[in-house]
Order: sequence, then C-alpha cells, then structure tokens
Amino acid sequence: MFKKVLVANRGEVAVRIIRTLKEMGIQTVAIYSTADQNALHVQIADEAICVGGPKPQDSYINMKNVISAAVLTGSEAIHPGYGFLSENDLFAEMVGDVGIKWIGPRPETIDLMGNKEHARNEMRKADVPVIPGSLGYIHTVDEAREVADEIGYPVLLKAAAGGGGKGMRFIYKPEELKENFENAQAEAEINYGDHHMYIEKVMLDCRHIEMQVIRDQFGNVVCFPERNCSLQRRNQKVMEESPASSMTPENRADMIDVVTKAVNAIDYENTGTIEFLQDQEGNFYFMEMNTRIQVEHPVTEMVTGLDLVRLQVLVAAGEKLPLTQADVQIKGHAIEMRLTAERSDANFAPSAGKVDFVFLPTGGPGVRIDSALYSGDMIQPFYDSMIAKLIAHDDTREEAIAKLSRMIEETTVSGVSTSQDFQLEILKDQGVLNDEVTTKYLENVFMPKWEAAQAEKEEAAE
Amino acid sequence: MFKKVLVANRGEVAVRIIRTLKEMGIQTVAIYSTADQNALHVQIADEAICVGGPKPQDSYINMKNVISAAVLTGSEAIHPGYGFLSENDLFAEMVGDVGIKWIGPRPETIDLMGNKEHARNEMRKADVPVIPGSLGYIHTVDEAREVADEIGYPVLLKAAAGGGGKGMRFIYKPEELKENFENAQAEAEINYGDHHMYIEKVMLDCRHIEMQVIRDQFGNVVCFPERNCSLQRRNQKVMEESPASSMTPENRADMIDVVTKAVNAIDYENTGTIEFLQDQEGNFYFMEMNTRIQVEHPVTEMVTGLDLVRLQVLVAAGEKLPLTQADVQIKGHAIEMRLTAERSDANFAPSAGKVDFVFLPTGGPGVRIDSALYSGDMIQPFYDSMIAKLIAHDDTREEAIAKLSRMIEETTVSGVSTSQDFQLEILKDQGVLNDEVTTKYLENVFMPKWEAAQAEKEEAAE
Repeated sequence: MFKKVLVANRGEVAVRIIRTLKEMGIQTVAIYSTADQNALHVQIADEAICVGGPKPQDSYINMKNVISAAVLTGSEAIHPGYGFLSENDLFAEMVGDVGIKWIGPRPETIDLMGNKEHARNEMRKADVPVIPGSLGYIHTVDEAREVADEIGYPVLLKAAAGGGGKGMRFIYKPEELKENFENAQAEAEINYGDHHMYIEKVMLDCRHIEMQVIRDQFGNVVCFPERNCSLQRRNQKVMEESPASSMTPENRADMIDVVTKAVNAIDYENTGTIEFLQDQEGNFYFMEMNTRIQVEHPVTEMVTGLDLVRLQVLVAAGEKLPLTQADVQIKGHAIEMRLTAERSDANFAPSAGKVDFVFLPTGGPGVRIDSALYSGDMIQPFYDSMIAKLIAHDDTREEAIAKLSRMIEETTVSGVSTSQDFQLEILKDQGVLNDEVTTKYLENVFMPKWEAAQAEKEEAAE
Repeated sequence: MFKKVLVANRGEVAVRIIRTLKEMGIQTVAIYSTADQNALHVQIADEAICVGGPKPQDSYINMKNVISAAVLTGSEAIHPGYGFLSENDLFAEMVGDVGIKWIGPRPETIDLMGNKEHARNEMRKADVPVIPGSLGYIHTVDEAREVADEIGYPVLLKAAAGGGGKGMRFIYKPEELKENFENAQAEAEINYGDHHMYIEKVMLDCRHIEMQVIRDQFGNVVCFPERNCSLQRRNQKVMEESPASSMTPENRADMIDVVTKAVNAIDYENTGTIEFLQDQEGNFYFMEMNTRIQVEHPVTEMVTGLDLVRLQVLVAAGEKLPLTQADVQIKGHAIEMRLTAERSDANFAPSAGKVDFVFLPTGGPGVRIDSALYSGDMIQPFYDSMIAKLIAHDDTREEAIAKLSRMIEETTVSGVSTSQDFQLEILKDQGVLNDEVTTKYLENVFMPKWEAAQAEKEEAAE
C-alpha cells in the first residue's frame, strides 16, 4: 500500500479523500493556492504545499507545479478528485512518467473516453447501445444533413472534444443546419483547439441514468447501483438519487451487463461512471463516460455501505477488489443535493465572501454532509460555487425527501447567499415528488414557475 | 399518528428526537430553561416553551411545568429522551392522566424495573438468568451474612431504589459486612427515601453487554444487535460498540430468546434495554433494565440502518412494528464515544462557558455526529457535560476505530476543555485494540497509566 498520497484538489472532495486516506493509515499531502491557505483540506492534511496563485491555471491545474509538489513531498500516488486535472490524460501521463501512480484509469483510457466520438465508436464495437447518430466525425454540412435525415430531427451537433455546452447546437429543422454547423465548428476550434464534430439524435422525455463501476488490474468488475440524475439546470446536476425508480430489476441487470462489457472492452482500470439516457420504454443509450470519481458518489455509498474512494486506492495500489457483484446490495434510498453559494433569486449569480457562521445539521440516522466549510471560512470567487453536499438516506424515497428537506431547512450559512430556497422549492414540486422528472423538466417546467415567483417577490419588495 | 409531540429534554437527544418527528411530519414542541433560550433544540423545534429556571428541578424535571407546557401547546404525546424525567413512573402516570400519550413503557413497568430487587425477582420468574444474590430484600446483617456465605465473597450490597452508586458497597470479607450494611442502608434512606437493600455476587472479569428491544401493543417483539459497553469510568460508559466480539451467534440467539421472554413476561411496551454481565465462558446474567432510549442507541442504528426513535413513535401511536426479527441484520461494526466538556487532564472537572468556535467533522461514509453544539453556543454548568457523540461505522472494528480516531482528531471546540486527548489515548490502548476490556479495565488498568502521564506532564510544565 502507498505510504503517502497527494490529493490534487481542494474543497469538499479533497477533504473527503484525505479522510479516507488517513483512515487507511496513509500519509496525506494537500496542495493549495495562495487564496486557500486557511482552507479545511490544508488544515486536515499531514502536509500541505502551496502550488501557486488563486486562479486554477496558476495552481490547481498548473501541471508542473502539482507534479513538483508530489515529487518534493515523496508522494507515491496522486488522487485527482473530480474537476481540475482529473480527466487530463496528458497530466495522468506526466504523473506516470515521474514514477508516481495515478489513482484513476490509464492515460490512454482517459484520452479515448474524453473524445466523445471515439468513445461512442468504441462502445458501439463493444455492443453497447449508443444514442443514434453519426458513425465517426462529420466534416461537412452535407454529411450532417445526410445523417440528420436518417435519424430524424431534432438532432444535436456536438464537438468531439466537447463538454460544458461549447460547440453544441440543437437543430430542429434542416434549414437550421448550415449556419449552426459552421458556428459550432468554429466555437469548438476556439474552445478546444479541435474542430471535429459529430451528430446525435435528440432524445426527448428521457432520464439521465448513470452507473458507476470499478475494475481492478486483474479484470474483476463490480458495478454499483444506478443513479438517477435527471434533474439538471444548464447541464449541471441539481439532484442525484439511487436507486432510480424507472429501473426495473431487469433494466438493472441489463445495464450491469452492458457496463461490464464496456469496461472490459477498453481494459478499464479503477472507477468510472457511464452515463446513459433512458427512454420511457426503459431502453438506455450510452451518452459518455466520466473517467474519475463523481460529485454524486455519496448516494451510492449510502445505499451500499461502501467507501468508493477506499476501493479506488486499493485498486490503484494493485490489490484485488475485495468484493464481488453479489456483495453489492441496495439498501433503502439516498438523495443528494448540492448547496451552492449563489443567488438563486437573481439568476444564480455566484456569491463569494466571508462566511461568518455555518451550521450544518449533522446527526441522526441516514444523514451525511460533505463539506469543507467552517465558521469564519472564505468562499473564494475563483472556484466552483458548491459549498456542501447534503445527502439523506432512508428506507423509502419519500422518507429520504422528508429528511433532506429537514436538513436543508436547518442549514445556516451567514455572509453569503445560498441555493437553499431553490432546493426546498424543488423538493416540494409535484413532478419531483412523483418522480416524473426527465432531463428537460427543470428547465422547461420548474424554472419558469421559479422565475415568475422571483419576479413577483421582487415586485412586492419594491 | 400524532399531530404534535413535546420533547421533554434538551441537548443532543432533544435535537435528535425533534429531527425524526419533523421527518415524520409531526409538529414539534421544545421545552427549555431560561439558561437554554438560545439552545439548538429550541431553534429547530416548531414551537418552544420556557418551563423555568436553569436548575433541572426548576425546569426540565419540574413535572407540573412540563405537563402544563404539553397541555398548553396541545401536544398529543411526550417523548422524554433519556435522563431527566424519562424513568419517572409518577411523571409518566401524570402524563397519562391528562390524556397525553407517554412515548415509553407503561408507568407500572417503569416502577417495576426501577426497583432493582423487584426487577431481579420478576426476571427470575421469567427464567432470565440473574446475577446470583439475595431472593428479595435483606433486612438484617445476619440475613446478609447468610446470603454472602452462600454465594461467596466478594459481594455487592445495593439499594433497591439505587442507581449512581449511592447505597452501594463492595464487601470482600465477612467482617466488613456489619458496618457497611448499616452505612449503606442509611445512605439509601437519605438519598432515595427507601432503605431496602439486596445483595449481588461481584462478578469479576465480565463484560457489560446489553440488548435493546422493542415491543408493540400487539405483543410483537424485535431485539436489536447487542452492544458492548464494558469501557466505563465511575459507572459511566466511555465507549460503546456493536456488535460485541465476545458474542457468538449462539450467545446472540440465546440473548434474543431471554430478552424476548423478559419483555413478554412484563407485557413491556415500546423500547428498552436489558443490561447483562457476560462472563469469560459466554454466560450472561441480568443486571437491570433501562426503560427508555439510551445514549448509545446510535451504534445500533448504524449497524442495522434503523431509526429507533421513529419506531418508538410508531409503537406509542398504536401501530404494529413495521419489521420482524428476521429484518434485523448486522452490517459492519459501529463505535461511539462521548465527547464531554471536561478537563480530562485535571480529574475530569467540568468545563463550562462560551464556545467560540466548533468544528465537527461531518462528511464521508460511516460518520455520524449527534450534537446540539454550534459556534457561539454556551455550555451551561447546570447540565450533563456531554457535548457530542461521535459514532464511526465501518466494515470491521479496526476500520471503525481508525475512523473514530480520525474524527476525534479533527474535532475542534474552542473556549472549553474537552475529553478529546483522553479518548484518543483510549483508542490507542492495546487492551482496547485487542478488545480484551472488562468492566473494571478502564479504572484498574488504563486510568493509573493516564493519571501518571498527566502528573508527568504537569511536572514537566512546572
């Protein structure tokens, strides 16, 4: 087992990883930017090393600085968390080159799954159902039109190197194709230095269902219960839960089968998550794979009783998975919401500054709050606005929702604005309570109501 | 189901109960003393009502005031928590008399099990193995000598109404009997207004093993996995865990059988815990029964995934237990330690005052912290010094200990002294790590080492 591991991240995920490492008896090294010198992850690590200025490019994603910190401290492995350098194959390769173990898949795998069209192609070869669309890149508008005619409108133009919506266009009619194709291609080139495009059918009325998996160096595979992350705002997950009520035991068995085939086909190592769209008939289609631990992994830990970060470390250290598929049982229902420092009443503008007082309602059965926040802490404007993940676990979905609502109500953060009201309103929404939510529900059904209510409030205040 | 419930307690247990009630959709009423007007349980309840001055006898155990608060607020039931009025049969009866449901056993049961000699007698009749000793009260020194000769020295003289060590004497030799008997009897009379005495054999090298049970109004019984609470200081539990490694599956099945017989014999309603001494051969003997929820119930909740307070409320509301014995499965291992505001370096003197800053390391899998403390809170000198319960749950005992140590290390409470160093030292003790601890271990083996280390530290500081 590793003696010392560097955690190349900050915030709640750095804290979460450091804690598991400590419990495993492993020395921990935190990295931090000059803005984060008093951050919790710095305080709880055995060692901490400054890697640069506040901006991520100067510190947390400054590859040379992060690698130097690992070498200097004699770290034997690097855990990247999520975000920052976690899906950067070049960095993963550099880490390997200096003789440090990367806690994640091989750089080639990160690269392969990072190119969305390569990933689709690879999955097709492995007999994984993929969202209908182009086979390979689309180079011209004519090629695009041919594919769109075949699969039917609306279609989605996507940048192969994409993510986060850049180089992406919804096309409803053939005549929209030309201008949008050229614009999207140019946007992709500017943002990713890669103009390659592909086309996918727009799947309406679908749920976002994903399945996390882990595979060790001996080829043993364990799939975890699926998560339903259909509630999204601007492609950001707002609520995540496990299990998904839309999944029958047969769906689940099929998905486990498909995910196992997928990771075997690409000789995957460590944990990752395959994201699917599931239609109303229960069919599911590969969207993409995240080659790292995800923000929402706690819901899976709550329903299974497992520590997924511990499994990541064991697998990276060359150990065999200490469990089999049969050991993974679903117990009850878990739901996570992400508390953000944002003005949900004012177009979700970020809200940074000093947090004078924090109260997180830890305690009682089925409660988990992953956070790096403390009374007196600073919320920096340079980083993600998520300040805590609140996770409720109970026997049933209704009970988990009641618990999560109660937790959000009790949560107190003074000095900045938070998303609490927005979240509480979501947990009262009839569509959410009935679990009828598809990926466009929040934007198309909930947000108009929310925005109208905010406008009304503002008017009343004037 | 009840519409509104009053919680007749304060601190972490009041908070813990209020939270479950809220999750069940029940309106909550907190009571508080004038010292506690800013306490957390007051802040999170739907209503709060002041019941008197800071001293418990003026507020939390002022029966008329508490009942008046319940009547005034239209509460349909009272949850007493632990301590205060929770084992006061007179109070439970008064509650029933005003038409409010007591969330606990019937007053007659509280009374029966509250008298230690009556309880022993009742258990004997139910075929429950009881610690060898007198059958009925001992009225004279001669009677005492007769019993002691029969069961063998050392023996323990105990007040029937006792608890907390008053009216209790260890007798090692016959010649010590006379003086001690008379003194103990006088002490019992003074402290409990009841001079009745009984005798028990002193059981050496035993573990304190207890089993919580719940029984509904229809006679359905469910026993929960046993807890090992052998690590005690001055009869106060210092560490509690579940399951107990000293219990074989056969021991456990036997104990479930015995506990079921016991609660059926006394037509017990709601939850309670039977405390046993277990000898090195695995035999166990009834000590006493706590007719309420216990401080250490979270370890049971962690290994079973149940909410015991929710079950209490369901049973009190007349519902059938929603689970059977077969549904109770032990998953992993859980350990609890009680963080107290005390000077563990100075004879455990209480440490009250303002807490400027609190950090409780919530987050990650298997972590639970039950507490009513917040940054800026006041620790009152009038009440119990326990400020948080830290509970770790993991696959194995070693992993749970590693997690608990890590949690205690991270915990930060400024402004008062806490027991953290003491607890960390216990978690490093070889006897504790080997799980060899019997009820006298802490006092006889650990404390001398601890006190010597404190004296050394003090000397070094001078």
